[in-house]
Amino acid sequence: MSDKKKIYKPKPISGFPEWLPEERLVEQRWFDHIRKTFESYGFCSIETPSVEEVDVLLAKGEVDKEIYAIERIHKEEGDDKESRLALHFDQTVPFARYTAQHFNELVFPFKRYQMQRVWRGERPQMGRQREFYQCDIDVINVDNLSIAYDAELPAIIYEALDGLDIGRVQLRISNRKILMGLLESMDIKDHVSITRIIDKIEKLETDQINQLLKDEGLSGEQVGKILKLAKIKGNADVIRNIEAENGLMSDGIDELYSVLDSLAHLPEHGVIGDLSIVRGLDYYTGTVYETQLLDVPQFTGSVCSGGRYDDLAGGFINKHLPGVGISIGFSRLFDVLRQTNPDKLGIGPKSPTDILVYVENSDDSPKANESARTLRANGFNVEVYHPVKKWEKHLKYTEKKQIPFICYPKESGFERKDMSNGLQEPVDIKEWKK
Amino acid sequence: MSDKKKIYKPKPISGFPEWLPEERLVEQRWFDHIRKTFESYGFCSIETPSVEEVDVLLAKGEVDKEIYAIERIHKEEGDDKESRLALHFDQTVPFARYTAQHFNELVFPFKRYQMQRVWRGERPQMGRQREFYQCDIDVINVDNLSIAYDAELPAIIYEALDGLDIGRVQLRISNRKILMGLLESMDIKDHVSITRIIDKIEKLETDQINQLLKDEGLSGEQVGKILKLAKIKGNADVIRNIEAENGLMSDGIDELYSVLDSLAHLPEHGVIGDLSIVRGLDYYTGTVYETQLLDVPQFTGSVCSGGRYDDLAGGFINKHLPGVGISIGFSRLFDVLRQTNPDKLGIGPKSPTDILVYVENSDDSPKANESARTLRANGFNVEVYHPVKKWEKHLKYTEKKQIPFICYPKESGFERKDMSNGLQEPVDIKEWKK
Repeated sequence: MSDKKKIYKPKPISGFPEWLPEERLVEQRWFDHIRKTFESYGFCSIETPSVEEVDVLLAKGEVDKEIYAIERIHKEEGDDKESRLALHFDQTVPFARYTAQHFNELVFPFKRYQMQRVWRGERPQMGRQREFYQCDIDVINVDNLSIAYDAELPAIIYEALDGLDIGRVQLRISNRKILMGLLESMDIKDHVSITRIIDKIEKLETDQINQLLKDEGLSGEQVGKILKLAKIKGNADVIRNIEAENGLMSDGIDELYSVLDSLAHLPEHGVIGDLSIVRGLDYYTGTVYETQLLDVPQFTGSVCSGGRYDDLAGGFINKHLPGVGISIGFSRLFDVLRQTNPDKLGIGPKSPTDILVYVENSDDSPKANESARTLRANGFNVEVYHPVKKWEKHLKYTEKKQIPFICYPKESGFERKDMSNGLQEPVDIKEWKK
Repeated sequence: MSDKKKIYKPKPISGFPEWLPEERLVEQRWFDHIRKTFESYGFCSIETPSVEEVDVLLAKGEVDKEIYAIERIHKEEGDDKESRLALHFDQTVPFARYTAQHFNELVFPFKRYQMQRVWRGERPQMGRQREFYQCDIDVINVDNLSIAYDAELPAIIYEALDGLDIGRVQLRISNRKILMGLLESMDIKDHVSITRIIDKIEKLETDQINQLLKDEGLSGEQVGKILKLAKIKGNADVIRNIEAENGLMSDGIDELYSVLDSLAHLPEHGVIGDLSIVRGLDYYTGTVYETQLLDVPQFTGSVCSGGRYDDLAGGFINKHLPGVGISIGFSRLFDVLRQTNPDKLGIGPKSPTDILVYVENSDDSPKANESARTLRANGFNVEVYHPVKKWEKHLKYTEKKQIPFICYPKESGFERKDMSNGLQEPVDIKEWKK
């Protein structure tokens, strides 16, 4: 080793986190559980490239998300003919593009899940990174899609989140048709602006919301009616008792009632009708979802959101493809728990190893390797500690990595040491099974 | 639906492939098997961000890989102070950077695997995409690392590849010290150029290799000696019988013998000593690996390569950190098999669903949902077919997706239909377990 070598000391890149092995093991456990839940409902996995053509990302109009474009450092002549590419900022647009592009090879209703990294060049803060994982499920169909799917998705999501053991979660569900119906009944045309104001109802004071609505030209009576509606929270029966002003509102109430009613098997805290939920995105047309961590009151954002859309893939294909979807903000959830309630993450060992096999001298290596193969065939994760060093070294290694057992090949057979109580005893490794 | 809507018809982006659900299921099976194999040897998972600072990527000198830089489309003032970022082109540099950065929190020998996407802006062709997965395993230690790890890695890789059922694979192993020793014994200084020529030995004719070596100023006798060595192929005993010209060569022979000897439990075709293997990269210092698909002769490239490096993380930390690693070119392997031998991929159903639950009218939905929950608890992947439509529709859907069973809630209990033989019979769903 030269003493003169040049050192470039690396530092973390803001918004692009990475985890230690013991944290990554928890992340893997989360991914495995979510994937298993999605598959248990018959959803198939797809992955799309990390990039899309910029034109595809902008197909639904100007995007307010911060997009990262990519470009080759050594461009060659003629490369300018290539399409301009950018990293995707969500999985919804790529999913819509995928569905349109492979339309003839897919079976509808098309039920897919997608668990990939997405990128947004926004300012990093708690729960908001520049590179993060989302776990999406969507169902999309040709021409029409049963409201039963709007009810199935929150059932799946509840199961997925509940199994992570992160405390109580609450799905808050509404239906945009209810507010839209009310606005129509009062002859208010600018749905988009009003919706965006209602979307802020949890972040702002009532006075501020009042003022914002009045700034849109609404009368005091209109504001009163809107806020009264937006404050309704409750179970299926509460929703059923809302008075409808017109057909659209009545449809919304019926749909929301049907969704909440079919979720009656969930714990009472797990799901609530909440008419303040409208979602900021314009493409939602009916059911909308948000999700709150009830045991992390200091974080008020939603960790899992989505809704019903009428025609998201419509910009890419001349078909009518309604769908409904929810996205778990996986990295947001992980980051929030990690910062506010790390015990809940259940961080444990630094490796998946069950048994360490130790040899005192290298002549015993073949025996060690063979015993490790036997134990692996018996279902264990086994590593052989190859450095032939001082006796204490392998003990320290085993302790640091929290490996439960050490196995010692002896002249006559094997011994195992249980690290939880220090007990050392002979073991028949052929019979030692997981 | 408006007829006037603007359609942006999406097209595939060259070098950024995506798979249909039935192909993705195979890809998932592959990932699961490789991951399970790596973990069974006690390797832990890490993931690094998709991007690194450009300065980190270039820390080992100018890179000949085509790098993609990323840049926010809407940059703000002051953003120029941010480091220049680029997508990583392999997992070795990020792993070295990670090890240096988290040095004090890791346990050594540090054994990690990493299965992520990497990006290279090269011209796409069979087995070469611009976005692709690699599956890497490496062991890195402080000051010195036992040669036993050089032997363990190919054992793991053989198990990982063999379990994919893609035909016979052959690991071809050499040790750079052997050629280096020979060159030293002949007083030839320019190792790098000679190594790069030997690396082409499989792609070029013997005459061409001869000429290239002579162009480097070598005598006919020297060329003869080098080519004689590079043509040696065989098992541990063949390697042991090579005559060493000096200490370095002798060390290389001993190491390669010890690696091959400890792989004697693998099938004879599975591993071979092959002195034509040198690898193009400069940072390898001892053992080097390549892997060939014996049953896909039309593809001569290596699907899995790596080797021993003395000090890869040394550019990032003032420590001596020798390591050894191999990388499976996952997407390369998948793509080559998909194009040359699709049967070997074993593409099957379009979804993970085991049972479809069908209801004839929506009044039966609660019963359908409840039975689906029971069957899920019994270990099945179950989807409820919600569209209440013509009887034939759900049959066609089940057939297209190759779902093995349909379950029908009846007034008195349930019936199941076995799609493999059409048999329909009553079933006690509580007792129907996977």
